[in-house]
Amino acid sequence: MTQRFSFTRLGQDGAARLGRINTPRGEIRTPAFMPVGTAATVKAMRPESVRETGADILLGNTYHLMLRPTAERIARLGGLHRFMNWDRPILTDSGGFQVMSLTGLRKLTEQGVTFKSHIDGSKHMLSPERSMEIQKLLRSDIVMCFDECPALPAPRERITESMELSMRWAARSREAFGDWPGHALFGIQQGGLEEDLRGKSAEALRAIEFDGYAVGGLAVGEGQEAMFGVLDYAPGMLPEDKPRYLMGVGKPGDLVGAVKRGIDMFDCVLPSRSGRTGQVFTRRGVVNIKNARHADDPRPLDEDCTCPACRSYSRAYLHHVFRAGEILSSMLLTWHNLHYYQELMQGMRDAIGAGDFAGFEARFLAQQAEGDIAPV
Amino acid sequence: MTQRFSFTRLGQDGAARLGRINTPRGEIRTPAFMPVGTAATVKAMRPESVRETGADILLGNTYHLMLRPTAERIARLGGLHRFMNWDRPILTDSGGFQVMSLTGLRKLTEQGVTFKSHIDGSKHMLSPERSMEIQKLLRSDIVMCFDECPALPAPRERITESMELSMRWAARSREAFGDWPGHALFGIQQGGLEEDLRGKSAEALRAIEFDGYAVGGLAVGEGQEAMFGVLDYAPGMLPEDKPRYLMGVGKPGDLVGAVKRGIDMFDCVLPSRSGRTGQVFTRRGVVNIKNARHADDPRPLDEDCTCPACRSYSRAYLHHVFRAGEILSSMLLTWHNLHYYQELMQGMRDAIGAGDFAGFEARFLAQQAEGDIAPV
Ligand SMILES: [Zn+2]
Ligand SMILES: [Zn+2]
Repeated sequence: MTQRFSFTRLGQDGAARLGRINTPRGEIRTPAFMPVGTAATVKAMRPESVRETGADILLGNTYHLMLRPTAERIARLGGLHRFMNWDRPILTDSGGFQVMSLTGLRKLTEQGVTFKSHIDGSKHMLSPERSMEIQKLLRSDIVMCFDECPALPAPRERITESMELSMRWAARSREAFGDWPGHALFGIQQGGLEEDLRGKSAEALRAIEFDGYAVGGLAVGEGQEAMFGVLDYAPGMLPEDKPRYLMGVGKPGDLVGAVKRGIDMFDCVLPSRSGRTGQVFTRRGVVNIKNARHADDPRPLDEDCTCPACRSYSRAYLHHVFRAGEILSSMLLTWHNLHYYQELMQGMRDAIGAGDFAGFEARFLAQQAEGDIAPV
Repeated sequence: MTQRFSFTRLGQDGAARLGRINTPRGEIRTPAFMPVGTAATVKAMRPESVRETGADILLGNTYHLMLRPTAERIARLGGLHRFMNWDRPILTDSGGFQVMSLTGLRKLTEQGVTFKSHIDGSKHMLSPERSMEIQKLLRSDIVMCFDECPALPAPRERITESMELSMRWAARSREAFGDWPGHALFGIQQGGLEEDLRGKSAEALRAIEFDGYAVGGLAVGEGQEAMFGVLDYAPGMLPEDKPRYLMGVGKPGDLVGAVKRGIDMFDCVLPSRSGRTGQVFTRRGVVNIKNARHADDPRPLDEDCTCPACRSYSRAYLHHVFRAGEILSSMLLTWHNLHYYQELMQGMRDAIGAGDFAGFEARFLAQQAEGDIAPV
């Protein structure tokens, strides 16, 4: 196993890239989907099970962990990997996004953000320097720059200011991250839906130099079409030889469209959160397990899926445990959704390797459009 | 694998018995603890995991299943084993106890009980005949007679009437159960804390003849001392060559005391329910994981326990996920508790086989009295 962080491109089909990230904690096959382990757990899953779905890397949330149980406590306990029993790579976000979306009272200055905890109202501060400190205490493998971004739509002026602040913070993040062998720091491109601002942001980041680059400020209300519009040009502005990460995305169709446009990494709460609300992702689109049509259905969710929910249970059972509010419902549906997402990523990796991404996309879209099997 | 239900006594130490129940669905080592799978799931556990803890048999609740998803639906889907993905033996209760404890509005007659569902207020009926019908639709391996019992303390007259009604219902249950090869019907002794009534009940049951006998009407508010008082004589009134089942019991100390007095089978929600409320059973007594003393404790719950919660996580982590309300907390603590209960049963089986039950009990009580390890 390597002691350095590195990215190897193994193939390309159009703009879609097949690759491998090496880290001291193991390899990440790209395009990669990272399940979200907000509070040091991927909800309703044991980490062994998350690994069984095919995940190479998890995402942890700086904002949640700094509030509870605190980064200092996790550091004393040996770091986040040991704390949560996941010894493979972990990417941590910077906390910036959640401060903006979860806390009502906050104050933004050039220095950073002060805010009140959504758990107990206690006062906290995040800045590029503090975010780097926390992510280091967590022993994150891939550290994200501390940034700021507005929900879309937003006036161009607001997007410009925000992007320029984020670029100054990116330089401060780089400085505070310093030299930490085996660990990576990713810069985050901002600029909303404005091509020229995206270009300026990319230029600023390239000048600083990072181990990887995220496309930030998307999936914040703009819709798939606008997002794909940005992805038609934004990834190409970033260095070819570094991984490109689209933050907080997305639905299965979003992933396919983004890989097609040159994205290598994703994270999203959607598969795990949907598992808890009874929304199931399948090759044939979304299935709502709470729907009465499943009550007597002896068939699995997806007869070709090899996850435990599909291998051992009928739709009737999954419907029953969902309706009864049983924890097992969240456990099984989350497992299926994460399994489906990882299978989708593997399908894309195989297609890029075989030079058939266009065929893969066409089959994917056709199957999704078919919809669920007819009721019994 | 046998095609008949049978019970073999393999050893005895004082009144404590070591045995084996054979069923077409597999063997049950006795003394046995049956985890409770109320709504066709042992809460927060996959059935594979329940099996890993060492459970040979589960308990299913007639009352809950008849209301949702209904016994008829489970029958159409191939029976309870297939429905819930557990192919080993299942014992079902008769529904009588839950009708009495969970439904406010009910009417008891010689014929049976009419009551309203605690889920949606719909009206239902249970009688010996209907209870047998439901348990057969579920394809239960061990069927319980439909009975009735008062909470204790209760006037002797009420206990007498209730016992006599239950004995008439036992005869009707036997008649309605008929001949069902490979499946067993257990009678239930009643009589509260009154030795003569327990004797009359046992006599009535022996005259009918059952495949096993439960000691019912205990663990309903009388306390451990009074319960042990009854267990000093009640098991001895029942046939020696059939399994004896103490319903709804109990805490670890209750199990040890009851095995010592000749009980072979137990069921209780305590280990699984406590797993969800943060109460952990260990060799050194009860640990409350929500207690702040665990927040920085890097040690496992029990360093000698081989369950996933103890093998892979610190008390600090278990404290964190409990406080954060994470589903994983219920998953891990339930697993530990069920593992501990099964290990306790194995310990008792080994001790009976080695003729050292008294030594086992002394060590058990001494360790429990020691209490938890000192805080860090
Ligand atoms: Zn599946
Ligand atoms: Zn344990």
